[in-house]
Amino acid sequence: MSDIDIIINELVKFRNDRDWDQFHNPKDLALAINVEAGELLELFLWKEAGEAKLEKVKEELADVLAYSFLMANKYGFDIKEIMLEKISKNGEKYPVDKAKGTARKYNDL
Amino acid sequence: MSDIDIIINELVKFRNDRDWDQFHNPKDLALAINVEAGELLELFLWKEAGEAKLEKVKEELADVLAYSFLMANKYGFDIKEIMLEKISKNGEKYPVDKAKGTARKYNDL
Amino acid sequence: MSDIDIIINELVKFRNDRDWDQFHNPKDLALAINVEAGELLELFLWKEAGEAKLEKVKEELADVLAYSFLMANKYGFDIKEIMLEKISKNGEKYPVDKAKGTARKYNDL
Amino acid sequence: MSDIDIIINELVKFRNDRDWDQFHNPKDLALAINVEAGELLELFLWKEAGEAKLEKVKEELADVLAYSFLMANKYGFDIKEIMLEKISKNGEKYPVDKAKGTARKYNDL
Repeated sequence: MSDIDIIINELVKFRNDRDWDQFHNPKDLALAINVEAGELLELFLWKEAGEAKLEKVKEELADVLAYSFLMANKYGFDIKEIMLEKISKNGEKYPVDKAKGTARKYNDL
Repeated sequence: MSDIDIIINELVKFRNDRDWDQFHNPKDLALAINVEAGELLELFLWKEAGEAKLEKVKEELADVLAYSFLMANKYGFDIKEIMLEKISKNGEKYPVDKAKGTARKYNDL
Repeated sequence: MSDIDIIINELVKFRNDRDWDQFHNPKDLALAINVEAGELLELFLWKEAGEAKLEKVKEELADVLAYSFLMANKYGFDIKEIMLEKISKNGEKYPVDKAKGTARKYNDL
Repeated sequence: MSDIDIIINELVKFRNDRDWDQFHNPKDLALAINVEAGELLELFLWKEAGEAKLEKVKEELADVLAYSFLMANKYGFDIKEIMLEKISKNGEKYPVDKAKGTARKYNDL
């Protein structure tokens, strides 16, 4: 079993043990991802990038990932597949010769 | 190589080919996760959970995951490890007998 | 009529002319605030604080404010009242002698 | 003095009493708006629109507004002016005859 499948199995077991699937529709999962992303962001608020507390970053990042994995699972998406496809698509939006060394958006390249 | 490592290798190669590591400090990665989470959320705005367009959800979810993987990589976190640790920690905050079937937060259980 | 009332009147007229009140339940308004906040945040992504484009900041900030005003209106909140009440409450959480010059959260003071 | 000016005066006094202007660059204010928007969103997570607790909504909405007012003040924007300008601009993007009764984005009208 792949690492991703092992993690998803644990997440789904955790959810099912608590009978939470009834709450986990895709819209609320999108809310949950945003709520956790906001908690992750708070760790950097009014701070330099290096000042966030590592233990907290680990936990909030894990929460963002957990709800993202659960959303993928809910839709039946293959995480590896959708990520590699998006990287490939981004390669077209950001060709190396135009995008190298600049943080501009693709529509400003 | 694990699926997660394969994905991270592709993300890092994509980033390095474009010389973007200079922009990817942890604080801006936290911003990027929030920006992408907001774009994912927008797909559900004013809609029922089932009305979001699948192809768009795939792409925005992949973006959230991509910046989350890159943040983990930046800190040297092992994604499987931090996710399994967080699930275990959440198991203590949400014991099955108290949390089953309710969406209340742990401090309201 | 106060400035806030003038703005709310315009927002409500705009919404009603388009028959959009049917979509503006408080939950979706909270989503809209987050979506717009994410677009505002994107203007600062990979950048120094001073590098965001002023015209865009104006527009995205106005969007955050618009949905926030519409949410207040939806609930019948008086914006001036809830803001002054929150400032007063924050004064208790962050007493000047403890909070002066530090960005720490109230539970770390 | 207008309502908006009264509120901004209180916010600025609160901030200056604590010597927090040093932290309030526009980028971190954008982060703060997102963090507070996330806390507002959390009140609706796993819930129907009508189930959020009013007292909490009031407080989190006031926080979103507070940082938005402070950002406007930081840039020297006139809140009434930028909001009315944006409403006018949105009127062009969403003409009544096309936008009436539909939640579609302007680029899908």
